Amino acid sequence: MRYVDNFKSVIDQYNIIFFDAFGVVKTYQGLVPGIEKTFAYLQQQKKDYYIVTNDASRSPAQLAETYHKLGLPAITADHIISSGMLTKEYLTLKVQGGFVAYLGTDESGHYIEGAGLQALPVSQIDDSNIDKVNALIFLDDEGFDWFNDLNKAVNLLRKRTIPVIIANTDHAYPTTVKDVSIAVGGLAMMIEKIVGKEFIRFGKPDSQMFMFAYDRIREHRPVSKKEIVMVGDTLHTDILGGNKFGLDTVLVLSGNTQEHEVETRIRSTGIAPTYICQSAVVDLGGFDF
Amino acid sequence: MRYVDNFKSVIDQYNIIFFDAFGVVKTYQGLVPGIEKTFAYLQQQKKDYYIVTNDASRSPAQLAETYHKLGLPAITADHIISSGMLTKEYLTLKVQGGFVAYLGTDESGHYIEGAGLQALPVSQIDDSNIDKVNALIFLDDEGFDWFNDLNKAVNLLRKRTIPVIIANTDHAYPTTVKDVSIAVGGLAMMIEKIVGKEFIRFGKPDSQMFMFAYDRIREHRPVSKKEIVMVGDTLHTDILGGNKFGLDTVLVLSGNTQEHEVETRIRSTGIAPTYICQSAVVDLGGFDF
Amino acid sequence: MRYVDNFKSVIDQYNIIFFDAFGVVKTYQGLVPGIEKTFAYLQQQKKDYYIVTNDASRSPAQLAETYHKLGLPAITADHIISSGMLTKEYLTLKVQGGFVAYLGTDESGHYIEGAGLQALPVSQIDDSNIDKVNALIFLDDEGFDWFNDLNKAVNLLRKRTIPVIIANTDHAYPTTVKDVSIAVGGLAMMIEKIVGKEFIRFGKPDSQMFMFAYDRIREHRPVSKKEIVMVGDTLHTDILGGNKFGLDTVLVLSGNTQEHEVETRIRSTGIAPTYICQSAVVDLGGFDF
Amino acid sequence: MRYVDNFKSVIDQYNIIFFDAFGVVKTYQGLVPGIEKTFAYLQQQKKDYYIVTNDASRSPAQLAETYHKLGLPAITADHIISSGMLTKEYLTLKVQGGFVAYLGTDESGHYIEGAGLQALPVSQIDDSNIDKVNALIFLDDEGFDWFNDLNKAVNLLRKRTIPVIIANTDHAYPTTVKDVSIAVGGLAMMIEKIVGKEFIRFGKPDSQMFMFAYDRIREHRPVSKKEIVMVGDTLHTDILGGNKFGLDTVLVLSGNTQEHEVETRIRSTGIAPTYICQSAVVDLGGFDF
Repeated sequence: MRYVDNFKSVIDQYNIIFFDAFGVVKTYQGLVPGIEKTFAYLQQQKKDYYIVTNDASRSPAQLAETYHKLGLPAITADHIISSGMLTKEYLTLKVQGGFVAYLGTDESGHYIEGAGLQALPVSQIDDSNIDKVNALIFLDDEGFDWFNDLNKAVNLLRKRTIPVIIANTDHAYPTTVKDVSIAVGGLAMMIEKIVGKEFIRFGKPDSQMFMFAYDRIREHRPVSKKEIVMVGDTLHTDILGGNKFGLDTVLVLSGNTQEHEVETRIRSTGIAPTYICQSAVVDLGGFDF
Repeated sequence: MRYVDNFKSVIDQYNIIFFDAFGVVKTYQGLVPGIEKTFAYLQQQKKDYYIVTNDASRSPAQLAETYHKLGLPAITADHIISSGMLTKEYLTLKVQGGFVAYLGTDESGHYIEGAGLQALPVSQIDDSNIDKVNALIFLDDEGFDWFNDLNKAVNLLRKRTIPVIIANTDHAYPTTVKDVSIAVGGLAMMIEKIVGKEFIRFGKPDSQMFMFAYDRIREHRPVSKKEIVMVGDTLHTDILGGNKFGLDTVLVLSGNTQEHEVETRIRSTGIAPTYICQSAVVDLGGFDF
Repeated sequence: MRYVDNFKSVIDQYNIIFFDAFGVVKTYQGLVPGIEKTFAYLQQQKKDYYIVTNDASRSPAQLAETYHKLGLPAITADHIISSGMLTKEYLTLKVQGGFVAYLGTDESGHYIEGAGLQALPVSQIDDSNIDKVNALIFLDDEGFDWFNDLNKAVNLLRKRTIPVIIANTDHAYPTTVKDVSIAVGGLAMMIEKIVGKEFIRFGKPDSQMFMFAYDRIREHRPVSKKEIVMVGDTLHTDILGGNKFGLDTVLVLSGNTQEHEVETRIRSTGIAPTYICQSAVVDLGGFDF
Repeated sequence: MRYVDNFKSVIDQYNIIFFDAFGVVKTYQGLVPGIEKTFAYLQQQKKDYYIVTNDASRSPAQLAETYHKLGLPAITADHIISSGMLTKEYLTLKVQGGFVAYLGTDESGHYIEGAGLQALPVSQIDDSNIDKVNALIFLDDEGFDWFNDLNKAVNLLRKRTIPVIIANTDHAYPTTVKDVSIAVGGLAMMIEKIVGKEFIRFGKPDSQMFMFAYDRIREHRPVSKKEIVMVGDTLHTDILGGNKFGLDTVLVLSGNTQEHEVETRIRSTGIAPTYICQSAVVDLGGFDF
């Protein structure tokens, strides 16, 4: 574990950079200031990069568009690996037909339709279609009525033995400098405990997320895990997951983990990154320890 | 563990009977058919009885009234021990003033006001009063907006180090023969996990519930635990809690635990009642094992 | 939550003091220096005091003797409430006969024999007696072969549906200034998870421990919870348990919780004591915050 | 989910078969009777097959030898994927030098030395080498003194912030028709809870295990997940893991899951295989449902 002044000196050692989105590239207020210089540098150096995100609320194309609007055209849909894409792969391979019920916004239903299946909001489950529901997906915390639809989801799972996918395992996410919102992963964890069944989780720290990104690269060229570094702001998702997959890792202090607590948190969790940087901005000045 | 044909032969051995409410005395459809004969018999035999319930949605007086309306005048307020009463005792002893924020119906706020404190629905927390909130209580799953108020509760606990009470630890409760609803204990468990703090739980299987009932009796007369039997329909609340407190226990098959699964459940949980009866109705005919 | 310079000014407000043992009255090195002055003061002021401890390795008489040898004659057996005593009460009330298997030292078997039952070390379970084993108790981490006897305990519980008691819920305990040992509560938690059954836990933070001490006092005289303060070094056992039972609480910094981390730990766990003192020694000089 | 009479009709639909070892190919008594016919059929049909096992107690070569001695020469080292191999890959990529401490037999240390690192049994950790220990691996439940070495492992992790690998996540394994032994995954789970740190788990149901096998195939030829079926006896490792990775799955009733309980278990866990077969033996007669 080494503190490194300039993020540039870290990425100079790797050919491919995986970035977490929230707390690394953007925050609830917009882009992390200066982050566009990092992507300009990566493009100039012809290094490959991917956003590896537990965000299943939108399609990669829609996610890319939010970056473009913020002034970061470098992040196109093909540079985005979302937990929603793993959900889509699962549905394609494992669910043969019928309805896939979901909790989330209408946009998040995209991943279901992309798998050639019929998306059914949990609110529309009734006696006429419940026997044709072949999976339930937790996609996003918005777009539905919590009281009615969480209760409906519990009762669906009491009646039907079907796979349940948590497409975003985060329990909460920041909405302002002081506030958070309960994420769909938190709601899903409650329902899993209530019904006593085992759900399938896609998203960091699970390896399948990293494997999906790794396979994407291998479609173009051979690659070794030694060439890749994972950059994240959260120890138990980005860093734990990256480490377990065998990647070097960089913890940045622009999001969930703050400078004054970083050493305590690493010691208490036992999760140590390869490097610690102030942020993922390439030319940021040094910092004092 | 013994199967007993007639509930009468069990209660004849004890002076005091503790009953769980839901699944034993009443169901979502009303009283358990014939249960009024049990209470008539208890009164005739001059045996003492208490309803020991994880229900904090109403005051004992209001709970008693629901029994009266159903045709069971024998259950008066002084025969009811609710987890809400433990919450009230806690507040009286441990919270000196200010507001007590709560999630639940207006009626459930009764327990807070009974402790001489000001009840504040979570929805009404704002910048002007948040610093005066000295406790948060989970009372009931109804009476508030889940999306807005659960998120507000999370953010309250990120800003204030205050005790949090779960006044009903159940995770779900039956609403029809096939459906359940998420209970406030399920919501509270989710928020406890998200904020990472330790909440205080009142309600079976916790011993404090049984101790409260036990102390109520001792106000009138000396008593030994040998004189009491706990009657319930749920292994991991009524039976586990009764056993741990040192009471004999009766599992009845009129609620959560059904005849075809009772042996498997006892073996798999390791929680064994002293007796198993078809129901808590005194003159019920025998059953075959 | 208030920092108080002198422990004396805290106890002057109460009639009865409950003390945790380890980290408050003694450490692995012997008595906490100066603690004898606290007990001299309590006796002079005619205040009542109890050691409330999760230690089931020895009988109260044997525990008292260890204090006498250390130079603290004030702690006699009738001032000690141990989780072993709750175990003994449970066995007396709930186990009718046969063998009670246990893991622990020979001395810890005392609690079983005190209940009029036959203690059987797990190592001596065999085909001839397994069907007469009516309970299993985890008493201490010493006195048995971990490999053989933990495996035997697992297989006992796969064959017999019997109550299992954890008489000391601690997961680890300090043995030197830098080292800890796995406690019997840690071993029991592992076996509970492996066999998937629900064990009964006696010991702080569980209320039944406090109730037992409270009842002991009430045998002599009427008492209100307002008259009692609980003194401990551990937030999630002594302080959480005392708070939940409705007692005022003092966190001392002579054991598990250290001065530099106390505020962080209180904020992160949400468990706040009524007072914080440097130690339970009455004339200790002030400290600076 | 379909009951299939003859395992042959399942494997005829796939090009590659993944087998769990214990409960599928062998039991504590030796080979599953008739299983050699399955491998003869696979070789005749030129289908590819792999043993995918959570066994890190021996090298693939040593594991293969145990099959040869049992009379199954078809299982050579290159057909075995063990969780120990993932551990070795992790060490190669993530640990630069120094000692790797381990709990397990001497043979299990093979995976550490195979990564070019120095294996140090936990029993040999002392003040002179503790600062050079750069990882701790849980490899096997045998080969060390539980009391001394589990306590040493706890204290190592209190002093050093190093990655901890659980190379076999099983909590217990059968040793006779009626008995089980605590597995190293059970011991590791206890220590993880005691020290409060997050360990890295390799082994089913984790996807990385399946990915490792999948990559092994792709070294030789292109492959789709549609061509592979996973055969196992345990719902929450083999079937859950296979399903999550996107494979079709077969539950066989020759091990952990028995015929009389299979439907209850599938319903209660929510984990459903694609097929259910009596065993993985190709010509087994039909069974009645």
